[in-house]
Amino acid sequence: MVSRVLEEIKKTIMQRLPSRVHVAKVEFEGPELVIYTKNPEIISENGDLIRELAKDLRKRIIIRSDRSVLMEPEKAIEKIHEIVPKEAEITNISFDDITCEVIIEAKKPGLVIGKYGSTSREIVKNIGWAPKILRTPPISSEIIQRIRRTLRKNSKERKKILHQLGNRIHQETKYENDWARLTAMGGFREVGRSCLYLQTPNSRILLDCGVNVAGTDEKTLYPFLNVPEFAPDNLDAVIITHAHLDHSGFVPYLYHYGYDGPVYCTTPTRDLMTLLQLDHIDIAYREEQPLPFNVKHVKKCIKHTITLDYGEVTDIAPDIRLTLHNAGHILGSAMAHLHIGDGQHNMVYTGDFKYEQSRLLEPAVTRFPRLETLVMESTYGGKEDVQPSRNHAEKELIKTIYTTLRRGGKILIPVFAVGRAQELMVVLEEYIRTGIIHEVPV
Amino acid sequence: MVSRVLEEIKKTIMQRLPSRVHVAKVEFEGPELVIYTKNPEIISENGDLIRELAKDLRKRIIIRSDRSVLMEPEKAIEKIHEIVPKEAEITNISFDDITCEVIIEAKKPGLVIGKYGSTSREIVKNIGWAPKILRTPPISSEIIQRIRRTLRKNSKERKKILHQLGNRIHQETKYENDWARLTAMGGFREVGRSCLYLQTPNSRILLDCGVNVAGTDEKTLYPFLNVPEFAPDNLDAVIITHAHLDHSGFVPYLYHYGYDGPVYCTTPTRDLMTLLQLDHIDIAYREEQPLPFNVKHVKKCIKHTITLDYGEVTDIAPDIRLTLHNAGHILGSAMAHLHIGDGQHNMVYTGDFKYEQSRLLEPAVTRFPRLETLVMESTYGGKEDVQPSRNHAEKELIKTIYTTLRRGGKILIPVFAVGRAQELMVVLEEYIRTGIIHEVPV
Repeated sequence: MVSRVLEEIKKTIMQRLPSRVHVAKVEFEGPELVIYTKNPEIISENGDLIRELAKDLRKRIIIRSDRSVLMEPEKAIEKIHEIVPKEAEITNISFDDITCEVIIEAKKPGLVIGKYGSTSREIVKNIGWAPKILRTPPISSEIIQRIRRTLRKNSKERKKILHQLGNRIHQETKYENDWARLTAMGGFREVGRSCLYLQTPNSRILLDCGVNVAGTDEKTLYPFLNVPEFAPDNLDAVIITHAHLDHSGFVPYLYHYGYDGPVYCTTPTRDLMTLLQLDHIDIAYREEQPLPFNVKHVKKCIKHTITLDYGEVTDIAPDIRLTLHNAGHILGSAMAHLHIGDGQHNMVYTGDFKYEQSRLLEPAVTRFPRLETLVMESTYGGKEDVQPSRNHAEKELIKTIYTTLRRGGKILIPVFAVGRAQELMVVLEEYIRTGIIHEVPV
Repeated sequence: MVSRVLEEIKKTIMQRLPSRVHVAKVEFEGPELVIYTKNPEIISENGDLIRELAKDLRKRIIIRSDRSVLMEPEKAIEKIHEIVPKEAEITNISFDDITCEVIIEAKKPGLVIGKYGSTSREIVKNIGWAPKILRTPPISSEIIQRIRRTLRKNSKERKKILHQLGNRIHQETKYENDWARLTAMGGFREVGRSCLYLQTPNSRILLDCGVNVAGTDEKTLYPFLNVPEFAPDNLDAVIITHAHLDHSGFVPYLYHYGYDGPVYCTTPTRDLMTLLQLDHIDIAYREEQPLPFNVKHVKKCIKHTITLDYGEVTDIAPDIRLTLHNAGHILGSAMAHLHIGDGQHNMVYTGDFKYEQSRLLEPAVTRFPRLETLVMESTYGGKEDVQPSRNHAEKELIKTIYTTLRRGGKILIPVFAVGRAQELMVVLEEYIRTGIIHEVPV
């Protein structure tokens, strides 16, 4: 079935690419279609060509060089430094034999990409290796280094995972898509352990898989994974809307109990989620209440994670397309829009979201082309819940700080959950900078 | 577990009944508690005693005579005719050796019961057999005769079924009742094949099990019984809200595929449902599209049906109490109120219901002592659906009939679904009786 789909695609590609382009191989890699060629420079100089092809095939396309045209790494490094302006501040260059990519980490990745990708194209044209450009964190981040190292070290395994996944995703659908079913497995009529299970005749998707950090025993800590319609080894995909543990904390457990499919999320969510999961294991261990999974399963999760940008339409199952949209809740937080079947049904699962503009984050996206089902967070949404406006809340805070400082007091602000501390710091910074609060050590 | 519950109950009964009452046996029979005694007359003369006991034990209690005090049937018949006034018009008397009951069918059953049950008590006092009094249908009804015959003929099997069921119902609950789950298996976002599945940690209940008479294949004709959480042989009870096939038509199938538990419904629903099920089998057979069950399974259904009156609170599982309330939809139609656990959760499933007073039927009950979940029929309830008032609809009908008759025309009124024809006949009768329409053959 896959081969038939792939054969069709190959035929179209051959027809559409200029005849002087030598296509060495076409294959699926996760949700993407990878074209290996001996003339990457020709393709990359004709950006429109691939864009049009992607649109018509309704696939995301990646161009990679055939092994035979790759420059020797040492020479390639020299060449890269020649092409990329010094101001880009490249901090690391490494080569991935498996994907034929050169990973360039730079403080100003925009300068490595160049205007409309011109510098990036120049690189591939000269050295063969396709550049994958990453931002060097402005403050050195151990967790990001660890994640990138894990991915580099396991490139071969990763490639195999993605290849198998690609073949699973791009099958023809087996059954008519005449129903879709949602099971509330956690986080409904409660806060914590968010987990929503979507089934269609052709696939099974898990949206979030959190823990309830306030839970006391197995019945209250984890989602209801024991419902009869669910089994980890039957899942096609897991989507994580944001990194907080009540949405991501139980994902490693899935890998412990038979799941070997992908996790889809934004890049910041992957990084933050890994940080929090490892932290959780650590704390639980020290409190002598070990979790039913360990670091090994977090690693397995990283190797299976596919990061997506907001707005990137992605095939995640033969009958389901996923698009993540900004949710405005924390760094990397997303709403998941699922397009089921041939447009038969569209649903949005919001995860946690925020409607208002805040200091650090844009408000959530609220416009979708079409929507039949909306599953929405409703924390603080009770009919008697009235939240003070941000403006009002900030003023109250500043007043309290001001009064306390004047009395010579010290201020401790316990901040619950990743993201709020950051937001608070920005508020404090502004009031100190504008002189409303005197400068104090924070 | 059962025996412990029963032992406790026996002890209470012994303490509460006057010492001169000789209790021969106490046992569960379906949802009821049956006390066999050699002195039924003492108990039946102290009606309050049993009422109080039932209230305290929270069980429905039936008093039966011990075999040793039963009068010989021939003599008993004579005695009954002596006691019951001729005006009661007894049409049949039969004896049930198994339950020690005498079944008296009469045209005026009220006269067999007597004021506050005085005549009925007189009977048991004199002949030992406990009278079960049934109304003789004013027009001879073949279906009711068949049902009553089936029950009479299978009294021994029925007794065994009820005994086993009683032991299942009156167990102590095994698990804490910390959740309840509903699965929509049919009739949601569609009309037809109504079927709702309720699970708690301790039991599994099916509310309605209909067919979609407008369905075209197995995917659209029957409820989604293939959901993974459902299996017929795992069910504790089936509740049928009314007899229309879209609510009752698939019940025999359950008995074909492993179910051997009870069906709860009102007596009219049982009778009408049986009629319609047999009719359906017959039509399907003649149309050469046979159903996946046959007459044998309808019979099995009858033998397992327990009829309830409106307002009768009944244990149907260790953690669930059922009360049926008038739904006003057709003869015998009911709403099912389920009391789950020790009052933790109360739900009402309305089935089809009618809000207004109509010619033949009272409006649906809409007051319930407590309710956490309401599952409501919404046919004709769309925001753009505006039904004409009954008054207006009647006037339109009469106007059309009047005009047609004046032109010398004849009128055919196709009426869809049991109950509407009857309602229509009453309307026509009134307009003819009051002279608004001239008398015409109907």
